Amino acid sequence: MTAPSTGARRTVDERERWARAAWSALAEPGDVVAGALVGQLGAADAWQWLLEQQGGSVALGGRAVVQEAVAQEAVPAGVRRGAAARLARAVERWRPRLERLTVEGWSVDAPPPGAAARSRVLVPGDDDWPAGLDDLGAAAPPCLWVRGDAAAARGAVVGARARTVALVGARAATAYGERVAIDLAAGLVDAGFVVVSGGAYGIDAAAHRGALAGGGRTLVVVAGGVDRAYPAGNARLVEEAVASGGAVIGEVPPGSLPTRSRFLQRNRLIAALGAATVVVEAAWRSGALSTANHAARLGRPVGAVPGPVTSMASTGCHRLLRDGTATCVTEAAEVVELAGDLGADLAPEPTATAGVHDGIDELARRVHDALGMRAARSVAMVARAAGVTSGEALEALGTLELVGLARHDGSGWRAADVT
Amino acid sequence: MTAPSTGARRTVDERERWARAAWSALAEPGDVVAGALVGQLGAADAWQWLLEQQGGSVALGGRAVVQEAVAQEAVPAGVRRGAAARLARAVERWRPRLERLTVEGWSVDAPPPGAAARSRVLVPGDDDWPAGLDDLGAAAPPCLWVRGDAAAARGAVVGARARTVALVGARAATAYGERVAIDLAAGLVDAGFVVVSGGAYGIDAAAHRGALAGGGRTLVVVAGGVDRAYPAGNARLVEEAVASGGAVIGEVPPGSLPTRSRFLQRNRLIAALGAATVVVEAAWRSGALSTANHAARLGRPVGAVPGPVTSMASTGCHRLLRDGTATCVTEAAEVVELAGDLGADLAPEPTATAGVHDGIDELARRVHDALGMRAARSVAMVARAAGVTSGEALEALGTLELVGLARHDGSGWRAADVT
Repeated sequence: MTAPSTGARRTVDERERWARAAWSALAEPGDVVAGALVGQLGAADAWQWLLEQQGGSVALGGRAVVQEAVAQEAVPAGVRRGAAARLARAVERWRPRLERLTVEGWSVDAPPPGAAARSRVLVPGDDDWPAGLDDLGAAAPPCLWVRGDAAAARGAVVGARARTVALVGARAATAYGERVAIDLAAGLVDAGFVVVSGGAYGIDAAAHRGALAGGGRTLVVVAGGVDRAYPAGNARLVEEAVASGGAVIGEVPPGSLPTRSRFLQRNRLIAALGAATVVVEAAWRSGALSTANHAARLGRPVGAVPGPVTSMASTGCHRLLRDGTATCVTEAAEVVELAGDLGADLAPEPTATAGVHDGIDELARRVHDALGMRAARSVAMVARAAGVTSGEALEALGTLELVGLARHDGSGWRAADVT
Repeated sequence: MTAPSTGARRTVDERERWARAAWSALAEPGDVVAGALVGQLGAADAWQWLLEQQGGSVALGGRAVVQEAVAQEAVPAGVRRGAAARLARAVERWRPRLERLTVEGWSVDAPPPGAAARSRVLVPGDDDWPAGLDDLGAAAPPCLWVRGDAAAARGAVVGARARTVALVGARAATAYGERVAIDLAAGLVDAGFVVVSGGAYGIDAAAHRGALAGGGRTLVVVAGGVDRAYPAGNARLVEEAVASGGAVIGEVPPGSLPTRSRFLQRNRLIAALGAATVVVEAAWRSGALSTANHAARLGRPVGAVPGPVTSMASTGCHRLLRDGTATCVTEAAEVVELAGDLGADLAPEPTATAGVHDGIDELARRVHDALGMRAARSVAMVARAAGVTSGEALEALGTLELVGLARHDGSGWRAADVT
């Protein structure tokens, strides 16, 4: 394990760091009881307290502070009475693993055993800790395991906002979806954003690839240990992400398996790491929708890329658009607007070819319609055809002549050629 | 001209009907001063009053009622002082045409001259008058010229709401857009809706075609006279619409040209005739967007069909989705929900293939993930791997065994094969 840089270490007690690492091995991702306990007591004290419970039944009597702490954070006011039972149940849940971890030598006084050589433990208080994770409250991970440049995890911070975007989508992506993901990612890194995704096949891989192709940085958020490439076919892509100034991030220690429930919990991490989440393609049921819903619950903007209604791979995106969860995004500039600071990053209006009638008013349009290309007409004829007064017709004809849309000679008025 | 049916004629004075027809020849579509005058005085009295102004300057002094009527309807409170000038200007605007119409024999006492044999004048008060047009206020047409079954114009009325949907879009449609328009139209007539569109090439034609293919009725709303097929290439389609119980509808008399300003005004008619408006494909600048915006101003629901972000033909739809004007619609059932009565017409949730883990809770999922297919594991091993208590593991294993996702023998627990 690489020693943390001085800058990252400055404000964090090392004992606390190793205790958080130990908690990440003990409690499953998203365990809010563990999160509340660590948040209220500190990771090292919580671990110590847990070891004291090992004898048998949980000694809640002398630990009213723990009970109250957990009650405040992890359960709604109406069910605080259940906090004691909830905590006792959690201790029972943690017990089987705690025994094994103790045997393996995990403690709060030393770096965790068995950690991969190239990974690093990032904890709250480190300069590189992504502030967005704090929005997860008790469900925030006790630490992040990072391989690569930990600074990338936070994204370039501009003002109060990290310039990160989560680009997610279906594994079973279409060529259309992959192309859009690549284009969006390249456009986003061009705008200074770090692209966050899950390292899966399909949209995830295309998002990482697009970021790398654009010369930018990308974060691969994995469900297992950061030393495991999952799926194996993306191993080279993941290494490229690390080599290009990005990082692989996990919330369970190196060596851990990516289980289904960890995949589900991983989605909340992706949502919390992105200033916005964009779903590029997703079937009606898709993990990407879970990421989008996590982002929405966190109050983060959600975008969805539309696609053909005939494509099953876009049904999930259309669902997000229909139920109002997501904003329709079609290009990188619109995603920047979604994720970026308001005002500074408004997407430009697409430029359209100017129409023949631009810049003239409704009256002049109507009069112009009443002109022929070949036959000359008198002002009175034009007025009648257009349904306007003779005065109005004359005034409009003057305007039209000025902008080159009408011309006149001795025999009357004609429409002018416009190329 | 076919005599109106007894049912349609019952409540409408014939003099008033012919006066409204005359006004439709005199004032350009959307002329709110004409609309206010006709609305307040009645069409015949307004026509008579107009004839009295023919001598020279407008005699407003003795016609305070007219001035006030126009002021109330057509101008905001702050600018009512301008009403007299506004009315005088309108009379001047109408004068050139009034002279010609008088020569041609238009009056309030007889059916209008020059009307095509197969058309009919529909006015407010007729049973078949589409109530939705009244929402246009002073911009409502004085009458409709109808060729075909006038009852189709109103749509099948269920409860207080007409079952009509305006399906509109670009002339320069893609094969994708035309296919979607055909599918939507066929699905809508299947649900008892009348499909309204503008008879143009591209999406309009596909919408009409889809409705006819589905055995339903469709309304062709034209910018000129109902005797003119515009564009000529759709003449056969228009005749088929009429022959199949639908109708061609216009707001200017037979023989009138479809000018550019009439095309723009026609969009408000389409929007007002549909209980909802759906844009299938539209470029960034498109008349279909004007129809959608008219519908939104009328408080009618607007839908937009998404498409590939790489298709210019969908940029207008995505624009409507992005700015919140439109709801994303992908199939007929969703359009029915948009246009229909709430509750009765909610789109069904698409049925998805049931997942392996459906119907079991998060705990059981986690325990299932901890099982191997080949190696048997003890309850304690499963509990540790899943991060749950032994009691929870046992309970979950019981559930999983019950639904066939786990099996056990003397050596322990395994995941069961699921096909």
